[in-house]
Amino acid sequence: MDTRPIGVFDSGLGGLTALRELAALLPGEDLLYFGDTGRVPYGSRGEEVITRYAQEDAAFLLSQGVKAVVCACGTVSSVAGERLRQKTGCPFIEVVTPAAQAAAKATRTGRVGVIATAATIRSGKFPAALRALDPAITILDLACPLFVPLVEDGHIAPDDPIAVPAVEHYLAPLRKKGIDTLILGCTHYPLLAPLIQAFLGEGVTLVSSGREAARAAKGILAEQGLLSSQKAGGSRRYFVTDAGGSFSTVAEVFLGEPVRDVAPVNIGDLERLAL
Amino acid sequence: MDTRPIGVFDSGLGGLTALRELAALLPGEDLLYFGDTGRVPYGSRGEEVITRYAQEDAAFLLSQGVKAVVCACGTVSSVAGERLRQKTGCPFIEVVTPAAQAAAKATRTGRVGVIATAATIRSGKFPAALRALDPAITILDLACPLFVPLVEDGHIAPDDPIAVPAVEHYLAPLRKKGIDTLILGCTHYPLLAPLIQAFLGEGVTLVSSGREAARAAKGILAEQGLLSSQKAGGSRRYFVTDAGGSFSTVAEVFLGEPVRDVAPVNIGDLERLAL
Repeated sequence: MDTRPIGVFDSGLGGLTALRELAALLPGEDLLYFGDTGRVPYGSRGEEVITRYAQEDAAFLLSQGVKAVVCACGTVSSVAGERLRQKTGCPFIEVVTPAAQAAAKATRTGRVGVIATAATIRSGKFPAALRALDPAITILDLACPLFVPLVEDGHIAPDDPIAVPAVEHYLAPLRKKGIDTLILGCTHYPLLAPLIQAFLGEGVTLVSSGREAARAAKGILAEQGLLSSQKAGGSRRYFVTDAGGSFSTVAEVFLGEPVRDVAPVNIGDLERLAL
Repeated sequence: MDTRPIGVFDSGLGGLTALRELAALLPGEDLLYFGDTGRVPYGSRGEEVITRYAQEDAAFLLSQGVKAVVCACGTVSSVAGERLRQKTGCPFIEVVTPAAQAAAKATRTGRVGVIATAATIRSGKFPAALRALDPAITILDLACPLFVPLVEDGHIAPDDPIAVPAVEHYLAPLRKKGIDTLILGCTHYPLLAPLIQAFLGEGVTLVSSGREAARAAKGILAEQGLLSSQKAGGSRRYFVTDAGGSFSTVAEVFLGEPVRDVAPVNIGDLERLAL
């Protein structure tokens, strides 16, 4: 039994998809969310910059005394996941493996799509994880670079005049080639799930990498005896590197509950932390 | 006479609109460009974060021995322009005043539009500058938050499937209300000028804030006797905080010449600089 909070981090709002699922699965756990809103997006940046930011983010969560780190960012999981796992010194849950497992289980035709940021697609981590589970799976992966800016800017309504053509533009090749399962390999993308589902049709199963990571986290914490005995009323605290943006507003829309306890984190302090 | 380079900075690619104009106006000057590609975009962030980044950016240029700093970023000019002007200790040229002057001169109907990032529009600096020049001008200003991500991701073709609907969505109110002059208050926006002009029609004069800043810079340097005696063959050097992205590719398309001398700047070093 361990009453310390579970830490969840992402470049911005995307990790809330994992937080929401964790809150539903483990309502008694205290959850601490860190969003690097002062430096979002990550997925269009190079490996070196992503790795540097990721280490600072994880170090911040550890400095807050978390018992586990959920890396709810597809880009960080793909580019710096292994490095973070070695360095955190506590249970570390990333999004690639759990999402690949869910997709391999869900597909019937063996044709699985992966959409993610440019950096994630470049890393090849999702296809590698899928092939390790089932070498017969046909994988269609592609980058959707504008999805994160769209989400961060609140363009998530099913009839949004920019998000709808963006979804159509990016996903047309997937619809043409035919898939029955699609991994949303960036945790921001589930905020666009209604638009994605509408374009691809109900026959395609969407796998949320944030949700799968939350499920994996529950399993790992249970296995290691690290769950709290508290069954309800867990607290939620949010830390962001830029409190001047639209984090709270979009977060409330997405989480469906008030986002009250949002504290700013000074990027200068963050940079002095190291794993 | 002064042979030191002129420094130009922006959050990312946008400042190249000023650099291109400077190179045309002052072909003998050495130009040093700094793009904070590791932390772009700025315009969706809060004031505190923008000011912090801006001070580091200007300090970097000064550390390279420039004789003048051209702040080729509408967001920084609006949010932190005065602060930087006081602190740089050398000629400092921002984009708001020169663009407002050009627009006030260009308009015949007195109906001037301003498009810029969310932070720039929030600051009210462009309307204030226009009103100071001519209180009778009617100003229609609005934020176009996705334009910077579109440009940084290379969505600048006249038939781009996402940029075209984005331009239509943002600019429809301006077209409806009628303007004859439009300030592109973010230096990224001239890269979308063909799309903007096509939507608004040839009757609308587009004012590029980067180009106007370059013209102003030439005037100030001449006035202070700081121009080089060299009439051609000036060098261009580029510094970026993330060399892993698409900077060189998009920069070459936009500048119409090879972008060779691109050096990475470590963000950690940048943060240790201060004005």
